Amino acid sequence: MNKKIKVGIVGANGYAGAEVLRLIAEHPAAELKVVTSRAQLGKKVSSAFPALPCDLEFSDASDPALKNCDVVFTALPQTAGAALVGELMDAGVRVIDLSADYRFEDISVYERTYGVTHPRPDLNKLAVYGLCEVNRDKIKSAQLIANPGCYVTSVLLPMLAITKAAKVSNIIADSKSGVSGAGRKADEAYAYCTLDENFKAYGLFTHRHAPEMSEKLGQKILFTPHLLPIKRGILSTIYFDVDNPEAALNALKTAYDGEPFVSYTDVLPEIGFVSHTNRCMFGARFDGNRGIVISVIDNLLKGAAGQAVQNMNIMFGLDETAGLPIYAPI
Amino acid sequence: MNKKIKVGIVGANGYAGAEVLRLIAEHPAAELKVVTSRAQLGKKVSSAFPALPCDLEFSDASDPALKNCDVVFTALPQTAGAALVGELMDAGVRVIDLSADYRFEDISVYERTYGVTHPRPDLNKLAVYGLCEVNRDKIKSAQLIANPGCYVTSVLLPMLAITKAAKVSNIIADSKSGVSGAGRKADEAYAYCTLDENFKAYGLFTHRHAPEMSEKLGQKILFTPHLLPIKRGILSTIYFDVDNPEAALNALKTAYDGEPFVSYTDVLPEIGFVSHTNRCMFGARFDGNRGIVISVIDNLLKGAAGQAVQNMNIMFGLDETAGLPIYAPI
Amino acid sequence: MNKKIKVGIVGANGYAGAEVLRLIAEHPAAELKVVTSRAQLGKKVSSAFPALPCDLEFSDASDPALKNCDVVFTALPQTAGAALVGELMDAGVRVIDLSADYRFEDISVYERTYGVTHPRPDLNKLAVYGLCEVNRDKIKSAQLIANPGCYVTSVLLPMLAITKAAKVSNIIADSKSGVSGAGRKADEAYAYCTLDENFKAYGLFTHRHAPEMSEKLGQKILFTPHLLPIKRGILSTIYFDVDNPEAALNALKTAYDGEPFVSYTDVLPEIGFVSHTNRCMFGARFDGNRGIVISVIDNLLKGAAGQAVQNMNIMFGLDETAGLPIYAPI
Amino acid sequence: MNKKIKVGIVGANGYAGAEVLRLIAEHPAAELKVVTSRAQLGKKVSSAFPALPCDLEFSDASDPALKNCDVVFTALPQTAGAALVGELMDAGVRVIDLSADYRFEDISVYERTYGVTHPRPDLNKLAVYGLCEVNRDKIKSAQLIANPGCYVTSVLLPMLAITKAAKVSNIIADSKSGVSGAGRKADEAYAYCTLDENFKAYGLFTHRHAPEMSEKLGQKILFTPHLLPIKRGILSTIYFDVDNPEAALNALKTAYDGEPFVSYTDVLPEIGFVSHTNRCMFGARFDGNRGIVISVIDNLLKGAAGQAVQNMNIMFGLDETAGLPIYAPI
Repeated sequence: MNKKIKVGIVGANGYAGAEVLRLIAEHPAAELKVVTSRAQLGKKVSSAFPALPCDLEFSDASDPALKNCDVVFTALPQTAGAALVGELMDAGVRVIDLSADYRFEDISVYERTYGVTHPRPDLNKLAVYGLCEVNRDKIKSAQLIANPGCYVTSVLLPMLAITKAAKVSNIIADSKSGVSGAGRKADEAYAYCTLDENFKAYGLFTHRHAPEMSEKLGQKILFTPHLLPIKRGILSTIYFDVDNPEAALNALKTAYDGEPFVSYTDVLPEIGFVSHTNRCMFGARFDGNRGIVISVIDNLLKGAAGQAVQNMNIMFGLDETAGLPIYAPI
Repeated sequence: MNKKIKVGIVGANGYAGAEVLRLIAEHPAAELKVVTSRAQLGKKVSSAFPALPCDLEFSDASDPALKNCDVVFTALPQTAGAALVGELMDAGVRVIDLSADYRFEDISVYERTYGVTHPRPDLNKLAVYGLCEVNRDKIKSAQLIANPGCYVTSVLLPMLAITKAAKVSNIIADSKSGVSGAGRKADEAYAYCTLDENFKAYGLFTHRHAPEMSEKLGQKILFTPHLLPIKRGILSTIYFDVDNPEAALNALKTAYDGEPFVSYTDVLPEIGFVSHTNRCMFGARFDGNRGIVISVIDNLLKGAAGQAVQNMNIMFGLDETAGLPIYAPI
Repeated sequence: MNKKIKVGIVGANGYAGAEVLRLIAEHPAAELKVVTSRAQLGKKVSSAFPALPCDLEFSDASDPALKNCDVVFTALPQTAGAALVGELMDAGVRVIDLSADYRFEDISVYERTYGVTHPRPDLNKLAVYGLCEVNRDKIKSAQLIANPGCYVTSVLLPMLAITKAAKVSNIIADSKSGVSGAGRKADEAYAYCTLDENFKAYGLFTHRHAPEMSEKLGQKILFTPHLLPIKRGILSTIYFDVDNPEAALNALKTAYDGEPFVSYTDVLPEIGFVSHTNRCMFGARFDGNRGIVISVIDNLLKGAAGQAVQNMNIMFGLDETAGLPIYAPI
Repeated sequence: MNKKIKVGIVGANGYAGAEVLRLIAEHPAAELKVVTSRAQLGKKVSSAFPALPCDLEFSDASDPALKNCDVVFTALPQTAGAALVGELMDAGVRVIDLSADYRFEDISVYERTYGVTHPRPDLNKLAVYGLCEVNRDKIKSAQLIANPGCYVTSVLLPMLAITKAAKVSNIIADSKSGVSGAGRKADEAYAYCTLDENFKAYGLFTHRHAPEMSEKLGQKILFTPHLLPIKRGILSTIYFDVDNPEAALNALKTAYDGEPFVSYTDVLPEIGFVSHTNRCMFGARFDGNRGIVISVIDNLLKGAAGQAVQNMNIMFGLDETAGLPIYAPI
C-alpha cells in the first residue's frame, strides 16, 4: 500500500482520457504523475476543468516524465500515439492504449478498417487485447494492452460466452450509445439542440467496431450503432440463431461466475443499472432457436477508462476492483 | 367551409386523446363539441390542462351529445369502448377508434394477443384499417376506422412498399419509442428519475404490435420495442433479406410519390426530422441481399392522433393536410 | 384570402429565422418567396434541413427578389442588417427586424450596451417596438418593427401591467432559458455533453437584455439569466416591492382580458404550459408588500419568431392568431 | 483499518437512503450490516435494485440488529423515526438523522413549519446540526446528528461565511433543484412526460427550507425553489445587499481554505462541476452594494447522503474524505 503506482495519461483532454484522470485521482493505489494535452497545454487541470480539482499542469506528449511512470494510458486518435508507445515501451514503461491501433490480430483488417498503414506491426504482436475477464492471464504480464472498443465490449462479453457453448449464426447487434462515445467536440452535429429529444442511426454496414467484433467472435456480425440523448451508456440488442438455446442460456448464467463486474440478470438490464460503474450486465430471451441478448455497459467506464484501469489493476497485482465503482447512483 | 365538422372525443385525458383535442381545437374545418374523461369529469379542459385553453367541460362517455357529432374519436383501453362504438354507429355517427379493438382481420389473433373476447365481431367486419396512404379509398366511405398502432405505422409504411416489389424474409424490427407511447400514468416505472439518462428494451418476443405488423405484412416479423428518454417519436431499424435490392430501394423511393406526409430520404432520417409533425420519413441501406430500413414518425401524431385526424380529413373530403403540421420545429 | 402576403426571410439559417420560415410555410395567408442564408447559399431548404420540406433555395441577402416582398423578416446579428433594412424600406417593403438594432428609444443606451455605433439613427425614429399587446395600434401602420428580446418579453408583459397600476421598486428578474436562445452554434459550450444534466447562470449584472427591460419599464432592473437543459422556453421569476399588492394582482388578472396569447393563471405557470405556442402565461404570489411573478413563454415563439409573425398579422390586418399555435402539445 | 464501522440504514428505499447505502457499500472503512424498508421488506437489495449488487435483505425498522450497529442513518419522513432514534440512542448507537426532526433549535418554528408536535424535545437538545465544515468540532462527539436540508446547505455554506464578515440584508435565494430532491414517488407530477423539457417554480413564500435557512443565518430570507429537468444537483442564485462587498468577497475566498469539499471559484460554478461529488462550489459578483452568489451542490450527496457520510467520517475519526467523491464525471 505504501508505494503507489506512478501513472501518466497522454490525451487527457478527451472524454476517455479525462475519465482515466478522474479514476486515477481517486484510486487508492495509484498516483497521477503526468497528464498531457495539446489543447490544454500549460493549464492546471482544475483551471481547464473545474470539475477535476487537480493541481497538475497539462504538459506535452513529449514530456520526459512519462518515462518515469510505471504505466501510461495513451488516449490519442488512431496512429497518432504509435511512435510514443514504442518509446515508452523501450523505456520499460507499461502502456494501456485506448486507441484501435493494437486491437486487431490481422493487421490488414485494421488497415482496411481505419484507412491507414499500421505504424508499428512489430508492437502489434506484443499487444494483448484487454478484455479483462477473458484475457486476464495474458494481461497480467503484458507490456502493451489494446483496450477494447466500447460497443465491442458490450457485445463480446455475452456473445463469447454463448459461442463457446453453442453454435451461433446470423448475429445482428443493434446498439445504442450515449453521446460521450463521440468524444469532446465543437460540432453542430453534437450540439444540445441537435440531439436533445432526438435519436438516430449511423454507420450502417460501415462502422469500425464491426470488424473488431467479427475478428474476436470468429464470424461476421452485422452491427448498427445509434445515438441516444443521454451522456453515458450503451445498450446492445443482439439477435442470433442458435442450435442449443439451453446451452446458450446456461453459458450466460455461469461463464462469469464470481466476476465482480460482469453478470447475468433475469430481469432485462437497463443502462441505468450500470451507468457510472464498471459493470457489464446482460439478460436473454429465447423463442425456439432464435435468441436475443440485451447487454449494457457504461461506455466511458467498462467501455473505455474503467476497463483500462481494470487492466492496470490486473497488470500490477492489485485488487481488481480498486478504484472502480460497482454500485450505480440514482 | 362554412359548416364545420362536429367532433367528439371519448377518453380525452390520455395522451393520444388529448393530442386529438389539441389538433381539433386548432383545425380550420372542425369544431370540438364534446370531450369526455372519467378522470376529469366536470372540469373545464383549461383547468385540468392549463396547456389547453379550451372552455369545454369534460363530460361522461354516456353524454348524449356525442350522438349529435359528425365524428367521434374513441381513445379508450381495449374493449372498454366497444359498446359505445356500436351505439354511436347506430346513431349514424362515424367513429375513429384509437384502440386495437378493430385492427385485426383475424379476430382469433386479436383475442389471443390481447387476452380478451372480441366485444363486437359484427363491427369488426365493417372496420377499415386506417393506414391512410395505403387504404385511402376505403377510408373515404368507412363508418368505422381502426387507427393503426404507433410502432406498426413506422414499420408498415416502408415495408409494405418493399414487399410489393420484392421477396422479403427474416424481418426484424428493432424499434425505439419516446415515453409518451406508454400513456399518462402515475407509475414509478415512468418517473423522471427512472427514465432520465436511461434506456431499456421490453416485451421481447411478446409485444402486442408484432401480430398486428405480421397480419398486415403477411409474414411473421420479429419485433423488439425499446424506451427512449424523449417525450415523442419512434425510430424503427428494420433488418431483412431481400431477393431484389434494387427493386426494393426503387419501391421505397417511388411508392409514396406526391404524398405530403410520407417520404423517402437519402440522408438517414432522425426522429427530430418528424417530431411534432404528421410525417413518416424513411431511408435504406443495402449490402448484397441484406437490407436495413430506418423509419421515423412522431408516435402521438402519425402514430396516433395525427393519423386519426388525417383519417377524418379523408372521410369528410377535406384537404388531407388540414390541421396537420409537416414542418418540424427545432 | 385569395392574395397571400409575400414574405422574405433574411438569415433563415439561425434558429429564430428558421422558426419564422416554419411558421410562414404553414401560415394560411402568407407565402414564402425568398429565404437567404450565407451558410446555406444555393442549397434547397429541404436539403439543408430535412425537417423543413420546402423547395425554395437559399439565396443571398442581396437577392433583389426581397424588394418584391410585402414584408421581410430580418434575423441577422447586431448592425449586420442595417443597410439592407434601409434599402428594403426605400423600396416600400415593410420590415420586421429580430435583432436589437431598433429596440431602444435612447440610442446611446443601445450603443453602450452593444458596443457599436448605431448604423441608422434615422430609421430608429421610425421603428415601433413590437410588443404586440402593448403597442398594437402603432404596429398596424408601422413600416419597421423592432421585435422585442426573448427574456424582455417574458418580463415586460406582466410587469408593464403592474407598474401601470401600482408603484413598484427593487425589481429582480431571475430568468431561465432553454438552449435554443443561444442560437445555432458549433461550440463546445453548447455541446450535448456539456449541457445535459447541467445548469448555470451567466451574464451577472451585464446581460444585454437588462437595459432593454429597464428602458421599457422606466426603472433599473436587476436581471440574471440562466441556461436550462431544455430546447425551448423561458421562465422568469420576478421579485419586487409594491405599494399596493391588491392593485398589482388585479392588474395582472385584467390587463390582458380577451387577449388570445397572454393570460393570468391562478396555478403557477410552467414552461410546458406554453412551449411550442405563442402564449405568455403568468401567475403571482404576494407576502405583504413583497411580490413574486412567475412568467413563461416559448423563447422561439412569443420570444422571437412567433411574436414576429403576430406583428405581421397585425400589420396586414389578418386574424392576429393566424398561423400561431395556442395549444401546447404534451 | 481492520475493524470496520458497522452501519445500519433505516428507510433505504428512498433516494437519500439508497444513496447512503451505495456510499457505505463502497466505503473503505465501513460495513453495511442492516438496511430496512417497509416497501421492500424481505427482498434482497440486488433484487429490488439491480443497480445495487448487495446481498443483504431489507428488514423492518424494528430489526434488533440495528442496536448492534456503531451508527445508524435514519431516512424516514418527518416524526416517523422519532421513537426509533430514541431507542437507538438509549442502546448507545450514534444516529445521523436525515429528516428535519432535529434541525431546529427553536422547536416552535419546527412545529409551525412542519405542522406537527415535536416527538422528542429532549433529544432535540442533544442534536448537533450536521453542517460539517461549520460544526465540525461538535460533530466529533455528537451522538445525534441532524443532517441539514439540501437547499439549505447550498445557501448556508457561502452565506454564513459572508455574514460573519459583513452586514448583509434583503437576502433572496432563488434555487433550482434536480428531480431526485422530491424523492422516490409514483406520481404523475413527477412523471417523465410531465417534467422533461419543462421547468417550474413551487412553494413561493411557503417552502419548509426557508425557516431552516433563516434560523441558521439569523435573519429572514426569501426563498423560492424550482424544479429542473435533471436528476441531481442544486444551483442557488442568492441576491443580497451588503455593507462591505470587499470583505464579503474575501470571506468567500478564504473561509473554507483547505477544505476538500467546499471552495470558491472565480469562474461561476455550474451544477455539472459538482454532480456525483460531495463538493459545494460557489462564486460571486458584486455591483456596488448589491451582491450575487452562485452556489452549487449535488442534492443527494453534499445535500443529503454525502454530507451524512461525511458526518460519520468526522464522528469516527476517519479521513473526512473517505468514500466520498470529489472529482465530477463528464
